[in-house]
Amino acid sequence: MRILVVNPNTTASMTEKACVAARRIASEGTEIVAVTSQYGPVSIEGYYDEAMAVPGMLDAIQLEKDFDAVVIACFDDTGLDAARCLTDKPVIGIGEAAYRVAAMLSNKFSVVTTLGRSVPALEHNLIRYGMERQCIRVRSSEIPVLELESEGPDAISKITLEIEKAIEEDRAEAVVLGCAGMVDLADKLSEQFSIPVLDGVTCAVSLCESLVRLKVKTTRKGGYAPPPHSKLRTMNEMLNDK
Amino acid sequence: MRILVVNPNTTASMTEKACVAARRIASEGTEIVAVTSQYGPVSIEGYYDEAMAVPGMLDAIQLEKDFDAVVIACFDDTGLDAARCLTDKPVIGIGEAAYRVAAMLSNKFSVVTTLGRSVPALEHNLIRYGMERQCIRVRSSEIPVLELESEGPDAISKITLEIEKAIEEDRAEAVVLGCAGMVDLADKLSEQFSIPVLDGVTCAVSLCESLVRLKVKTTRKGGYAPPPHSKLRTMNEMLNDK
Amino acid sequence: MRILVVNPNTTASMTEKACVAARRIASEGTEIVAVTSQYGPVSIEGYYDEAMAVPGMLDAIQLEKDFDAVVIACFDDTGLDAARCLTDKPVIGIGEAAYRVAAMLSNKFSVVTTLGRSVPALEHNLIRYGMERQCIRVRSSEIPVLELESEGPDAISKITLEIEKAIEEDRAEAVVLGCAGMVDLADKLSEQFSIPVLDGVTCAVSLCESLVRLKVKTTRKGGYAPPPHSKLRTMNEMLNDK
Amino acid sequence: MRILVVNPNTTASMTEKACVAARRIASEGTEIVAVTSQYGPVSIEGYYDEAMAVPGMLDAIQLEKDFDAVVIACFDDTGLDAARCLTDKPVIGIGEAAYRVAAMLSNKFSVVTTLGRSVPALEHNLIRYGMERQCIRVRSSEIPVLELESEGPDAISKITLEIEKAIEEDRAEAVVLGCAGMVDLADKLSEQFSIPVLDGVTCAVSLCESLVRLKVKTTRKGGYAPPPHSKLRTMNEMLNDK
Amino acid sequence: MRILVVNPNTTASMTEKACVAARRIASEGTEIVAVTSQYGPVSIEGYYDEAMAVPGMLDAIQLEKDFDAVVIACFDDTGLDAARCLTDKPVIGIGEAAYRVAAMLSNKFSVVTTLGRSVPALEHNLIRYGMERQCIRVRSSEIPVLELESEGPDAISKITLEIEKAIEEDRAEAVVLGCAGMVDLADKLSEQFSIPVLDGVTCAVSLCESLVRLKVKTTRKGGYAPPPHSKLRTMNEMLNDK
Amino acid sequence: MRILVVNPNTTASMTEKACVAARRIASEGTEIVAVTSQYGPVSIEGYYDEAMAVPGMLDAIQLEKDFDAVVIACFDDTGLDAARCLTDKPVIGIGEAAYRVAAMLSNKFSVVTTLGRSVPALEHNLIRYGMERQCIRVRSSEIPVLELESEGPDAISKITLEIEKAIEEDRAEAVVLGCAGMVDLADKLSEQFSIPVLDGVTCAVSLCESLVRLKVKTTRKGGYAPPPHSKLRTMNEMLNDK
Repeated sequence: MRILVVNPNTTASMTEKACVAARRIASEGTEIVAVTSQYGPVSIEGYYDEAMAVPGMLDAIQLEKDFDAVVIACFDDTGLDAARCLTDKPVIGIGEAAYRVAAMLSNKFSVVTTLGRSVPALEHNLIRYGMERQCIRVRSSEIPVLELESEGPDAISKITLEIEKAIEEDRAEAVVLGCAGMVDLADKLSEQFSIPVLDGVTCAVSLCESLVRLKVKTTRKGGYAPPPHSKLRTMNEMLNDK
Repeated sequence: MRILVVNPNTTASMTEKACVAARRIASEGTEIVAVTSQYGPVSIEGYYDEAMAVPGMLDAIQLEKDFDAVVIACFDDTGLDAARCLTDKPVIGIGEAAYRVAAMLSNKFSVVTTLGRSVPALEHNLIRYGMERQCIRVRSSEIPVLELESEGPDAISKITLEIEKAIEEDRAEAVVLGCAGMVDLADKLSEQFSIPVLDGVTCAVSLCESLVRLKVKTTRKGGYAPPPHSKLRTMNEMLNDK
Repeated sequence: MRILVVNPNTTASMTEKACVAARRIASEGTEIVAVTSQYGPVSIEGYYDEAMAVPGMLDAIQLEKDFDAVVIACFDDTGLDAARCLTDKPVIGIGEAAYRVAAMLSNKFSVVTTLGRSVPALEHNLIRYGMERQCIRVRSSEIPVLELESEGPDAISKITLEIEKAIEEDRAEAVVLGCAGMVDLADKLSEQFSIPVLDGVTCAVSLCESLVRLKVKTTRKGGYAPPPHSKLRTMNEMLNDK
Repeated sequence: MRILVVNPNTTASMTEKACVAARRIASEGTEIVAVTSQYGPVSIEGYYDEAMAVPGMLDAIQLEKDFDAVVIACFDDTGLDAARCLTDKPVIGIGEAAYRVAAMLSNKFSVVTTLGRSVPALEHNLIRYGMERQCIRVRSSEIPVLELESEGPDAISKITLEIEKAIEEDRAEAVVLGCAGMVDLADKLSEQFSIPVLDGVTCAVSLCESLVRLKVKTTRKGGYAPPPHSKLRTMNEMLNDK
Repeated sequence: MRILVVNPNTTASMTEKACVAARRIASEGTEIVAVTSQYGPVSIEGYYDEAMAVPGMLDAIQLEKDFDAVVIACFDDTGLDAARCLTDKPVIGIGEAAYRVAAMLSNKFSVVTTLGRSVPALEHNLIRYGMERQCIRVRSSEIPVLELESEGPDAISKITLEIEKAIEEDRAEAVVLGCAGMVDLADKLSEQFSIPVLDGVTCAVSLCESLVRLKVKTTRKGGYAPPPHSKLRTMNEMLNDK
Repeated sequence: MRILVVNPNTTASMTEKACVAARRIASEGTEIVAVTSQYGPVSIEGYYDEAMAVPGMLDAIQLEKDFDAVVIACFDDTGLDAARCLTDKPVIGIGEAAYRVAAMLSNKFSVVTTLGRSVPALEHNLIRYGMERQCIRVRSSEIPVLELESEGPDAISKITLEIEKAIEEDRAEAVVLGCAGMVDLADKLSEQFSIPVLDGVTCAVSLCESLVRLKVKTTRKGGYAPPPHSKLRTMNEMLNDK
């Protein structure tokens, strides 16, 4: 099977990182096709970036026709509902995936994300997914997405501090790492804290494999009904009409 | 004061209709600047259209710098959160406005919108705004947005039927008309059914006037913090970089 | 238009304060008629005061027939539902008004009120209005209503401290001042904290102007149906029958 | 022990009916003191009546000092929170009592009340008590309170019809009769439908006996803190000051 | 009347303790029949113990046919729903009982229980009973159930500390003691803290007396319908079939 | 990997049916070990059966030590929380699995189960999982579990009728089949109705494979902490001690 991993921001190094993680977790026989959105913001931190990133991501999905499932590799599940209108193949966001896995492994969990400005968007998603009672708190480490790597040990110590608080103050039984850029840290932190510390990219790839094997499809009825053909135009085509 | 009414779809006749309604309700001294999104879908029916409409709408807001408040003239409150990141001036969606007015006039209300495919998006907004108990049901008349006018009396009778059911089955005390294209009908239907039948465009313009007079601003802290300057680029600029 | 501002407690100096604030915010052409309840408690701090204040407030509304909208100028929205049964003109409580404005300007807000004994009543209102997710916490400064003025700088420093905690601990993006007596402080505190700090009196007057311009009415169907004429008797008439 | 049963409306025949039912259920050694509010509406149908009934009921409680618990004998739990501020003895409303008993006997129940105008007030109480998931629907039989008796068999057949619908359409496992005036019908209807059909007066008297035997008190901390002595004035005193 | 108090764990000294408390609170004429589950865990701390305790408890109920109501004397309300299928007599859990009493005496309460591992199970019950808004927090004192007595003063000081935090941090107006083994402490702690501190055993016995006097039955329709006779076999019979 | 599929009822033909379905969906390299509970009820229809089935199921899990994940093959997710305390391997119930898959494929879904008596237990699970907004209604076809096969075409037509109502009345975008015995029907019904019609057994096996590949564990902290060794005794051992 082919799983399309779309990075909705335009930073290729993040796509690469997600791709490596996705391939590491993928079953034999699963091909990971990782694509970077061709236009849009370099990182997604809050509502504005999210909105500007969606068309590029939808384009990437439409361009790459040959896939069995789609992973949206940004933790705010950028454009998830719109993407589900484009295909009857399963589409999963990495935030959604991590939450659903956490919900099967623990009674209550907390999230540790990057900037505080992203927190309300994540909280809305959690309500949307019915996770508002199971997720106790969304914590921010105040590390900008693109500095996750450059900051190195400093970034890790900030994240570690928030996990400690999640365990102590929130009584979290599991922690979700709230950024695709934290994909490397999950295993080590799980071990360090002796609780599940989850990363969304690997969760989403693995859930996609499940859905593909189940041969289930995204519903075509109601909110995810496909748009009429006349409306399936790219942002570029739309801009050229202008 | 100047209120910017942005039609997030590209159908100028709908902008015109909203503009006429907005001017009719506007106070003396309020200037209505109605703009049509320059690119994007011709109507917004469901998640995909909504996502593709947001960048054009955000561009329109950024182009039109001189305003005191913004009305987003599509009933799914297209891109509302993203727009609030762009300006500290009040920004209101017409769906949100109609719900908030209905909530001040009745204990419980129902919504009558166009197509069933739009219903889940509206239901998510209602939960987002805390209206899930006060709004009993979102009903669809199954009239496509752009046929609201062409269908004429037929469209009206479909809408009328759903209002009857809202009163009888849902025990609604008020009804919200769920499409900018229904702006003409509110007064007549209010009279006909002897309950408040509300239109979002007029509600939003009027609430904007309130907020402007109150001199209140959209918060700049947390989820609506302004994006850094480097990220404030239009979709066109982003596409050209590609 | 004429907006009736009813102070449901009997302290005329609070009416005066609300009236000044109301007039300051009112549009040209809006007349503010401020009345003090003629009997009842001198301040409303908790459920008992609230219950004893309602009949006097309802009387005041019935005496003052000539108005286009009513503002109930106590932060617990004293008798709001009962008042809506008395007239088809819009009726808004100052608590409700401030919450609804805060909800249009921020993702999450906290309330700073006077005494802890009032907090549960406010929390019930917030649930009633669907604001229980958007309002993070109702904080009390433990200043009695009537000492708001006499305490002077001391009162302000207590309120300031709670706003600081709201921003720091609750991650509030806006703050609502939970007492009509705090109406003077909103502008200064907004500036000081660089977030919206909202006062209910001005919000309610401004929202009333909106509803009047919209020519919308309180529903007469269901919970707000007018009582039969035989039941529209004042507390005095009722007591005399005794 | 002495249980004060306060009828918050002024119709003595309803007090009598409640008193008979209360005495029938009371344990040996429990004295029922039934009092009629001395001023206020003749029946409580909706928000306005409720608000106007509260002071008379609070007076009745304060006059009758010698009691161990209080039952508020109107199904909308008129002034329950205010009454709890007046005494540390347990105070229970008949609506609340019936809901809590129904919740211990069934997974889901429906309510059958008198007029539709009372429904929203009851729905707000249900949310307040956390019963919004367990109570499926509040149904109205459209019989005015004072005609419950005069209508006789016709009234019963309307109520019966709603119970049938509650079982069939709502899948209710129990039914709560939503008016003190229906107290006579509960036993017969329970038998007829082979499910619990509950009346609030008897439930409340019995729960009061429980709380008295437990020697528990209404909290004096927070929302039910007693008002300062200077504020404990009757409506009559307040009106005379005017 | 005869009230069956079932201790779902096999520790007879805890049954004895509950029995003494039950008899102390029981009305004249109420006989308390206290039985210890004949097989299962020695204490119930978390989901596993709870599951293993249910069959022994159900057996105990079926053996002891002659009763008018049943109290399940473990704070997690072990097997409450299953027990309600076995009899049309009222069945109440001590957790449920204490929550419902607390809800009639206060606006908000907290729970102080034994081990943190029991907290999620209690939180699920609270949601189940609609108490998730009224119960602010479930606190654990980290005292194992069977050490409640042996620990003596040390246990009491741990519990006292959590009550202090409940009042200070949670703004609790009442506290529920979350373990049958704490039954002795309620009166003393109520006095010490001047708020209701409630114990489940006495609350449950007293509520059972109420329901018996009311002659109400557990519904036989829907979720509590009795199992067909062929399925009413004890665990021992089931194991012997194996 | 080895996935243990435990049938918590004692009907071997149902285990066989689940096993066939599980093997059909399992990936190459996944071994399905299907076991039947050795004692307990022959089918699980409601709370009582569920409670009596749990110990046999827990025994089965403890006997079968060599597995990588566990599927609980009854739609009410019998003993799920208790099972999670027994192992750090992932444990998934088939109800939970189907709901989570439905939630990733549709905005709203309904459930079609067997008997009405099972509905409340399923509704509680849905609230527990945060699915109460996404699942619109749990419908019962009134076919006893063990007659699903014997009834043949009649059973199918009853189920079909409920799916039609789910689509028409509930506006469901997907349907979950609420019984392990319906596992055969999902594919055919999906095709017939052109929406996802999901079966829990296959969903659970596939999700288990995901979690195993992710190498994630059930948390050992908080509610799922392992019981102390002394408490890990089988029901048989417990009964023999008696």
